[in-house]
Amino acid sequence: MNNSDSKIRIALDTMGGDNAPQVEVKGAVLALRENLHDLFIYFVGKEEEIKAELKKENYSGDNYEIVNADEVITMHDSPAKAVKTKKNSSLVVASKLVKEGKAHALVSAGNTGAVTMASILNIGRLKGVSRPTIASPIPTEKGTLSRITDSGAFVDSKAEHLLEFAKLTDVFMRYVQKVDNPTVGLLNVGEENSKGYQLTYETFELLEKSDLNFKGNIEGKDVFKGTVDIVVCDGFVGNIVLKFAESVLPFLKKKFKDYANTGLLPMLQIGIAKSAVKKALHDTDPNYYGGTPLLGINGITIIGHGSSSAIGIKNMIYEAAKSQEADLIQKIKNSQ
Amino acid sequence: MNNSDSKIRIALDTMGGDNAPQVEVKGAVLALRENLHDLFIYFVGKEEEIKAELKKENYSGDNYEIVNADEVITMHDSPAKAVKTKKNSSLVVASKLVKEGKAHALVSAGNTGAVTMASILNIGRLKGVSRPTIASPIPTEKGTLSRITDSGAFVDSKAEHLLEFAKLTDVFMRYVQKVDNPTVGLLNVGEENSKGYQLTYETFELLEKSDLNFKGNIEGKDVFKGTVDIVVCDGFVGNIVLKFAESVLPFLKKKFKDYANTGLLPMLQIGIAKSAVKKALHDTDPNYYGGTPLLGINGITIIGHGSSSAIGIKNMIYEAAKSQEADLIQKIKNSQ
Repeated sequence: MNNSDSKIRIALDTMGGDNAPQVEVKGAVLALRENLHDLFIYFVGKEEEIKAELKKENYSGDNYEIVNADEVITMHDSPAKAVKTKKNSSLVVASKLVKEGKAHALVSAGNTGAVTMASILNIGRLKGVSRPTIASPIPTEKGTLSRITDSGAFVDSKAEHLLEFAKLTDVFMRYVQKVDNPTVGLLNVGEENSKGYQLTYETFELLEKSDLNFKGNIEGKDVFKGTVDIVVCDGFVGNIVLKFAESVLPFLKKKFKDYANTGLLPMLQIGIAKSAVKKALHDTDPNYYGGTPLLGINGITIIGHGSSSAIGIKNMIYEAAKSQEADLIQKIKNSQ
Repeated sequence: MNNSDSKIRIALDTMGGDNAPQVEVKGAVLALRENLHDLFIYFVGKEEEIKAELKKENYSGDNYEIVNADEVITMHDSPAKAVKTKKNSSLVVASKLVKEGKAHALVSAGNTGAVTMASILNIGRLKGVSRPTIASPIPTEKGTLSRITDSGAFVDSKAEHLLEFAKLTDVFMRYVQKVDNPTVGLLNVGEENSKGYQLTYETFELLEKSDLNFKGNIEGKDVFKGTVDIVVCDGFVGNIVLKFAESVLPFLKKKFKDYANTGLLPMLQIGIAKSAVKKALHDTDPNYYGGTPLLGINGITIIGHGSSSAIGIKNMIYEAAKSQEADLIQKIKNSQ
């Protein structure tokens, strides 16, 4: 292993997703072939399976290495327990490559809780960060991607944590997403300052006193509108909103299908509508925007859906590469 | 006034909505003309304006009465303050008609917080109910309407309140919506019992010990799926999810419009798609399902969107009528 060159080194949890290692290898090879970033990929996982997939892809560059790891953390594993006991899992081994400085970024489409735990326990939090945050992208009417922070790293955060989440996400938006002076809103049940309960009152005050571009309270209806770039909430609310948002497309598909089944004309209409709807909503596909950063860790961590496609994996790798090119970790350190 | 007959008596806050009193009068007249329920409507509000609207509608039945009220509570009024100080507002006067037994139901498309306060302060809670709940309908993939309870009556509820919300909504679903043995789910960040935080742990235990048809935790993605009939959560989360859900259609419209503007073929495609989408999603229009009950009050209260159409108002009146025909208040008393 050699990390003295300028390559962006990605530790890919190659066994993480629902269709691992096939889509992981396919996605990584797409990224290596497109060559938009100067990448080096550690394929971490079951060596024989990874070799077989690489052979299928017929890829023979010298910008990768297979790191064997025999265990797999599944979606059903308890995060903390799995990370502590499955020492030879692809996720744990990949996270340790980041800790050891061999890789800049951990990329995984595995168990979100376990990726979070592995990042906290093995890579470690940045100094000054008491809680990292999952800053999930969410498409908006404006065509921008807002971020919901925290969307589920923790479920019992306090006002000072929410302030940290906002600050970490602000740095990410500025330097990685290149959003100029990103706006921040506190997710609440009404726009007036007086709305909410103890946590929101306290968070509102902290955000207002901060240097952030705070726009006050926003409501559930403002998330898709893109009223602000950064939607601040605790991880319980954020996780529910995020998963609800992700259910919108399947809901539409089912409704269209049911309507198409009511007759020949509806079937024709929906047939024509389908491709239009797909194009109109192409930027709402999680595979399109490529993963979610876990911010506040002493290394780049990008988490993806278990159901990520190869394109999704490729875009997760790109998100990690962009974060490294933007020197995200140093930028966060400077902001503390 | 005469309440000795069998008519269902509705106190309509005729000045409540964004387009009051026009849509309120139009909607009520639609209900009176359709005559599906044996209704008597109190039009509560500015007498002259209501008279003018009734004249426009050319309605001359004997099953209504105008009750003058000169003040109006707006969407910007502070709920508690407005209900206490605007004694001659249409909302306060209408709620008092229910308190006095002259009307069975209060129907309002006004300020939700104010309708909740007026119901609690003027009509009163049922014995055994510490907190009423707003049980908002939400469309599902299955074509059913689930209920999110509480969707915003309170924002700092405890486990015992959430249990009450579930019980009140269970009675409503059984007797008004005629759902057989409605299923109940606790909105959480994962399906496992161990997920969540103090409030969800405690609520889970209470729901599990109850006689309700409790199916365990559900996630944000399960709401649109219709995994359960009754989604239990505190009003902070419920309000955010509800408002987010209501933003889905406007989001789609904007995305379609933007895509249509990219060229002639997209414009044609979207033109055809539009009517199909409208039909496929017709049951997701809040005007279609007619308002939200506030449960736990000693009288029927139906709250609607400020932007309700005349059809929306009509359906709110129908929801109130169905609740009275099902003898909802007595059924809730029996369940205590």
